[in-house]
Amino acid sequence: MDQPSRSAGTVRPGGRTARVRAAVMEATQDELVEHGFHGLTMDQVAARAGVGKTTVYRRWGSRAGLVTDLMTELANQSTPHADTGGVEADLRANALSVLGAINDGRLGATFQAVIAAATSDEQAAGALRAFYLRRIAEWANVVDLAVKRGELPAGTDGAEVIRAISAPLYYRLVVTREPVTEKDAERSVARTLAAARAGAFVVEEL
Amino acid sequence: MDQPSRSAGTVRPGGRTARVRAAVMEATQDELVEHGFHGLTMDQVAARAGVGKTTVYRRWGSRAGLVTDLMTELANQSTPHADTGGVEADLRANALSVLGAINDGRLGATFQAVIAAATSDEQAAGALRAFYLRRIAEWANVVDLAVKRGELPAGTDGAEVIRAISAPLYYRLVVTREPVTEKDAERSVARTLAAARAGAFVVEEL
Repeated sequence: MDQPSRSAGTVRPGGRTARVRAAVMEATQDELVEHGFHGLTMDQVAARAGVGKTTVYRRWGSRAGLVTDLMTELANQSTPHADTGGVEADLRANALSVLGAINDGRLGATFQAVIAAATSDEQAAGALRAFYLRRIAEWANVVDLAVKRGELPAGTDGAEVIRAISAPLYYRLVVTREPVTEKDAERSVARTLAAARAGAFVVEEL
Repeated sequence: MDQPSRSAGTVRPGGRTARVRAAVMEATQDELVEHGFHGLTMDQVAARAGVGKTTVYRRWGSRAGLVTDLMTELANQSTPHADTGGVEADLRANALSVLGAINDGRLGATFQAVIAAATSDEQAAGALRAFYLRRIAEWANVVDLAVKRGELPAGTDGAEVIRAISAPLYYRLVVTREPVTEKDAERSVARTLAAARAGAFVVEEL
């Protein structure tokens, strides 16, 4: 079952290495959703994926290594930013995308498990940070486009606008533990846009 | 050491019952900070507090019971809302208070441990929600005072304004795992206030 003599990096993409990774990522996410980070074990992931334990230990090293690769995979699978031609519709698409992920049983539980893991594991924290900074940078483009169209003031900080859209939704999800609804997404867009139009997201002079 | 024959409720405040509670709350917070919710055990809390195990089991029932009582105690100890006579200074006081709690080694670690616990424990989630809803309701008063002074539009939703001040700070703390600085607190106040002045927090008509 295991092939320790073959170097993982030399196998062609789409071959056994890719199949093993897909199975291990799927099993990692399943285990995270069902048992959380504290209930995640390398052995259980290997068993669930139908992959030899030594392969999992050699390739991912630790459960934090599994979570890091899973977050990379989830970022790779995420949709690119909207481009509707208007900033309000673009930001609404962002808010609804975040809302959909949060309220998706599998994806939402995955994020919550990694958010919990990150409070006590530095590697998990790094994986979480990398995931969100990639998503923020991707969606910040809609603000740059809006500035070019003259919809928002020059110098508006796109990454900060995107953080501001997400923040109230995650605050309800993991801090106040309140339901996160489409109304919350709409409010977040309206409030962020009002502040952005008033210039409150323009990068400050040093 | 333990006195199972004496009913806890009949002992005078400030007496043995109050001393036991204070010692158990202190030990609960110490254990949470050092080991997180998954590392919290009733036995270790009892040992650390110098209190009999049966007392801890009888009075708090479970580690989630300990966390619930701790969050109630932390809410009781929290400062009342500012009243400087101006909404900007009041909201800045709120943001700096949140920032101080987040960046306090002991208090910040406590919140993060309970936020993590709440992702997998319903009772911990309820305790977290109750804590923040009390704090939000307390500080919402500064918005009501601002509306009365004519600083913000009539109908501005005070609880939503206070959520909006905190949200970007907690988003950086537990989601993007970025540093949370005084600059972030100032930005949160400026942006929330810009949106509030533009009427974006006025309660919508049904």
